[in-house]
Amino acid sequence: MSDSVLLIGSGGHASVLLEMLIEHKINIMGYVSPSPASNHMLFSQYRWYQNDEDILQFDKATIKLVNGIGSLPGNTLRADFYTNYKILGYSFVTLVSKDAGVSRYATLDEGVQVMRGAIIQTGASVGYNSIVNTGSIVEHDCSIGSNNHIAPGVTISGQVTSQKNVHFGTGSSVIQSININENVIVGAGSTITKDVEENCICFPARITIKVRK
Amino acid sequence: MSDSVLLIGSGGHASVLLEMLIEHKINIMGYVSPSPASNHMLFSQYRWYQNDEDILQFDKATIKLVNGIGSLPGNTLRADFYTNYKILGYSFVTLVSKDAGVSRYATLDEGVQVMRGAIIQTGASVGYNSIVNTGSIVEHDCSIGSNNHIAPGVTISGQVTSQKNVHFGTGSSVIQSININENVIVGAGSTITKDVEENCICFPARITIKVRK
Amino acid sequence: MSDSVLLIGSGGHASVLLEMLIEHKINIMGYVSPSPASNHMLFSQYRWYQNDEDILQFDKATIKLVNGIGSLPGNTLRADFYTNYKILGYSFVTLVSKDAGVSRYATLDEGVQVMRGAIIQTGASVGYNSIVNTGSIVEHDCSIGSNNHIAPGVTISGQVTSQKNVHFGTGSSVIQSININENVIVGAGSTITKDVEENCICFPARITIKVRK
Repeated sequence: MSDSVLLIGSGGHASVLLEMLIEHKINIMGYVSPSPASNHMLFSQYRWYQNDEDILQFDKATIKLVNGIGSLPGNTLRADFYTNYKILGYSFVTLVSKDAGVSRYATLDEGVQVMRGAIIQTGASVGYNSIVNTGSIVEHDCSIGSNNHIAPGVTISGQVTSQKNVHFGTGSSVIQSININENVIVGAGSTITKDVEENCICFPARITIKVRK
Repeated sequence: MSDSVLLIGSGGHASVLLEMLIEHKINIMGYVSPSPASNHMLFSQYRWYQNDEDILQFDKATIKLVNGIGSLPGNTLRADFYTNYKILGYSFVTLVSKDAGVSRYATLDEGVQVMRGAIIQTGASVGYNSIVNTGSIVEHDCSIGSNNHIAPGVTISGQVTSQKNVHFGTGSSVIQSININENVIVGAGSTITKDVEENCICFPARITIKVRK
Repeated sequence: MSDSVLLIGSGGHASVLLEMLIEHKINIMGYVSPSPASNHMLFSQYRWYQNDEDILQFDKATIKLVNGIGSLPGNTLRADFYTNYKILGYSFVTLVSKDAGVSRYATLDEGVQVMRGAIIQTGASVGYNSIVNTGSIVEHDCSIGSNNHIAPGVTISGQVTSQKNVHFGTGSSVIQSININENVIVGAGSTITKDVEENCICFPARITIKVRK
């Protein structure tokens, strides 16, 4: 990749992406965030832009955006940003960690981010602006929708489909050939064994907490 | 490996194996499947054999088989194929993904398949025709039986033993030093903390699904 | 690393560490264990020292210790050994598997052990004598305390903090920004979605086991 990029955000997810950009030796023009990235030593050498409007000074033909806005259930900030800047004519980088294992027969749409240790198997596809987060697994022939967040440690078995805006919570699992409709939240630790209708949320059974003797 | 191989099956599991064979630059003579592999672009350049009987035209001294039949709980097709063609004198390839992490002090029997991101630690052994699927973990000194399927995202702690025909479902976990007897199904998402008798099935607690407000 | 080391222990955890030491081509002076390591072929070429007192014959300026004592909930043997030999002036090796994925912006204290396939993301830190075991995930900006054991297959989301002596059981998960206080046991397979007070133990919901028909 010879493009120059602008990183959007300065939180935890943005910091992991920044490390990936550095590893890929991509030219980083700066980061855009309401406040400077105080917590992350690695941001300090990059120029800080405070406002989204600052992005407009960059030529959409020569710079690409990296969506570093994290994804939490019920928060549309990340998806909205992507949509708005696509309408304005900007492009987003598809970014794959050097430590991820992506099949050469898998398909990643624009703006997909595949983090360290994640695996995407033969014949799978992932829709635009989705995150395949640290150490998660997307098995063969899955069709993952756009604006999905597959949180760390998730396992999605073969031939699963998800529609847009699905959140797979930390450590959740999905068995093979399941369909998950749009706007679903798969709660952390849940195991999905049946299709899930749109706009649903899945909770695992509660844990019990006792004082140790 | 300088052998030529024949791939059995054309479904999702077979497609992941085919990608591994290509990566290993193994000479692929074709695949055997009741119907041609319509869904998988990567099969198209290989010769299709429709009937199991077609295998018999290949010399068992110069060709090895790759068992691409997937493994689902309660389905013996994969195990039966292995047994039948061993009786006929054929051998099966033991296949390890370049992206798997297998200890040099682990032992894999004939026909074991270790998929991308899977880990097998020091002193562990895996019995014939078993699958250690994508991103699953077999810890130190485990003794995994034959015809086991360790599904994606499974974690098996140290010194666990399993007998033949055990299915570890997606995302399940087993704590250390557990014994799992033959023909057990560990349901997806289950956590096993006690020994399991033969012919049992383990279910995790149910999840709750609600409509989001 | 050009130091010579002495390995403490000869059980399963010690055997995995020994393989890592061999891979790193570290000079191994021997192992210390009440009984010789009968089960592990790979120990046989190293000198056996039976008593902890044997350690004292080694110069603390030129030799480092590798704490191969495993960590089980409620057992302080591993932590006690570390404390005692630090008081005597010895140092402990921080050991990272070549197959682990540790961010260059993460911090590992003395004696931390990161096993095969484990991932530690940008901005995370791990306290002294802790184990990040096989295939476990420590996400960005986590602060893991000392003497923690993160068992195989655990997922700890971003910005989680743990205090000292926490055990994360096999396959457990923790969502983002949780605080886990000292001496907590997160039971295998638990999903933690709220802060946990000190000296508590968390159990997942029970599984159901039935005989297959």
